[in-house]
Amino acid sequence: MQDEFYMNLALQKAWKNQLLTYPNPAVGAVVLDNAGKILSIEAHEKAGFAHAEVLAVFRALENSDRNFTLKFLNSYNKNFNSNFKDTKNLATEFNANFIYDFIIKNHADKLKGGKIFVTLEPCSHLGKTPPCANLISALKFKDCVIGAKDENKIASGGAYILNKNGVNVKLGVCKNEAEILISPFKKWQKNGKFVFFKLALSANGVACGGIISNEKSRIFSHKLRAISDLLIIGGNTVRTDRPKLDTRLISSTKNPNIFIFSHLQNFDKTIPLFSVPNRNVEIGENIYEKLKNGLIMIEGGENFLREIKQNGKICRQIDYFLFFHSNKFKNAQNLKIDMKFNQIFSSQNNDENYGWYEISKF
Amino acid sequence: MQDEFYMNLALQKAWKNQLLTYPNPAVGAVVLDNAGKILSIEAHEKAGFAHAEVLAVFRALENSDRNFTLKFLNSYNKNFNSNFKDTKNLATEFNANFIYDFIIKNHADKLKGGKIFVTLEPCSHLGKTPPCANLISALKFKDCVIGAKDENKIASGGAYILNKNGVNVKLGVCKNEAEILISPFKKWQKNGKFVFFKLALSANGVACGGIISNEKSRIFSHKLRAISDLLIIGGNTVRTDRPKLDTRLISSTKNPNIFIFSHLQNFDKTIPLFSVPNRNVEIGENIYEKLKNGLIMIEGGENFLREIKQNGKICRQIDYFLFFHSNKFKNAQNLKIDMKFNQIFSSQNNDENYGWYEISKF
Repeated sequence: MQDEFYMNLALQKAWKNQLLTYPNPAVGAVVLDNAGKILSIEAHEKAGFAHAEVLAVFRALENSDRNFTLKFLNSYNKNFNSNFKDTKNLATEFNANFIYDFIIKNHADKLKGGKIFVTLEPCSHLGKTPPCANLISALKFKDCVIGAKDENKIASGGAYILNKNGVNVKLGVCKNEAEILISPFKKWQKNGKFVFFKLALSANGVACGGIISNEKSRIFSHKLRAISDLLIIGGNTVRTDRPKLDTRLISSTKNPNIFIFSHLQNFDKTIPLFSVPNRNVEIGENIYEKLKNGLIMIEGGENFLREIKQNGKICRQIDYFLFFHSNKFKNAQNLKIDMKFNQIFSSQNNDENYGWYEISKF
Repeated sequence: MQDEFYMNLALQKAWKNQLLTYPNPAVGAVVLDNAGKILSIEAHEKAGFAHAEVLAVFRALENSDRNFTLKFLNSYNKNFNSNFKDTKNLATEFNANFIYDFIIKNHADKLKGGKIFVTLEPCSHLGKTPPCANLISALKFKDCVIGAKDENKIASGGAYILNKNGVNVKLGVCKNEAEILISPFKKWQKNGKFVFFKLALSANGVACGGIISNEKSRIFSHKLRAISDLLIIGGNTVRTDRPKLDTRLISSTKNPNIFIFSHLQNFDKTIPLFSVPNRNVEIGENIYEKLKNGLIMIEGGENFLREIKQNGKICRQIDYFLFFHSNKFKNAQNLKIDMKFNQIFSSQNNDENYGWYEISKF
């Protein structure tokens, strides 16, 4: 198979965590052994935790040596006085530096001569986690295939380090796709904010009247709520649906602050969203001011979309649209709009599709 | 990676040709070398031409030896007095028996010790093409992983032959998915017919008013037209859209016969569909009688769907629904129906999704 095949596996995997890695970029990695066999396909999941390369290398070593996991868990639990029984939550619960050091000490040259595909140039700086370029070099990978070049000044230079250490570097495989994957990251690096508008549609275009998406899509929504700095919702939806807007499906304790976009201030305070702990709720008309900092999620319905559509200034602040396309039909009126969107990426949550879009015309 | 990962690649590939292999089943195959590296992912494309296993083995040999293709083309062109410059259309234009024999004589043990994944048990009988079980044995594959068992009496026994010849057989990997893949095949074997209803929807559920799907989806539709024995369409659509209903996007010379479902007989005969050569056009009310033999495609719109919905007898004759879900919004009324569908499989045609469905309630 061509390099593009493996890079595509890494890209697909990374997209599953798009935005969830905020403020880090979404990154995916694939490891092949020296004979070209796939050992792992992994993606970065959470800022402050292990990078895609570290996860992929770790899983590859687990695949190559049954005792690796056991040895790792013994060492980890002793060191952190913890009691992990498996490495399932490696990407979100385990200390990244410890994983890195453990790999360096215990890889036993098992990946020597192998090939690693990374959607983004491996980092070369010591940030919250140690540099991946050094890890790849230390494990004596023969080839490193990279999608997009890292233009982030602090972290760049990975390809240089790899080259210097004798790793063959191939840059720019699936370059466009790899650039698109990190476009949210670039936007929040540049503008200090990223705004996305989420909407769920039935198979025949109905966007209202209770739950539309399947459970997997709703879990994804709750993960996005948990990572968002602010959740914006329309006043009408709040009055009609009486939502809680929490993250119960993922048992998270982090619930987003809420901005209710409304011309009126009086809301029934028994609506569940008002009683979620550790949450700030604001009500107001000046939505534009709310779109300036951090990761902002708008949970829209038809009315909200119409309203922002009429306001180009606000519309231009919205970076991405996330549409969940259910495959169920609803016997009701569809959302009728004149907006055009370009699909950036689309995938599936079990039996339903979802897609990330950019507005192309309004 | 687990066997399920590779079987899934084979399944995805096979679904791309669903129904197009009629009256053969859709089958996919993946070949790994003796070190576990992926060499090919192929699927059967057209009845009477090479099976998935033969295609996958051929591509794997092309991958292992640069001279293999050249040697094959020389031999093929000499034998058939043809002038092929490449093997791009191997699956639809090359004599299957010749490919098979050429592989047997020229594999040079390159795939010895390898692993082949097939979504359906390899055939054991000499049909239009020689038995795939013998090919896999002759090439000295170490492992053969099979999705669904072949219950077709004439062709079964592949696993037995493989076993007898020393190939390790693992049966039932992704069994459910593999069974679903061949469910259309089983239906036409059992009932002598398969009926599917195709409908295109905009992102907001509009099913009328000119072209909805993208080019790739329309090409897929034209391929389905070319393989279908009969194309059924509603009288209203014929009057309003004045369609040609041919296969121009794939430059096919085979255009389906047409049954116009209409209470009235008088149609403007300058409507393009009437002047497509080598086509029989019938007009009538008794659609039920038309759903009894062969592969039947219904190109439906909203009215047609409503009409058959009210007639359970007809509705029960429809085996699959194929919905193309465009990602473009149309500022018009949606299709409003009370029908429920279960998704069987869904995939993408570039930037839009499509899915195969069964009706679950009407």
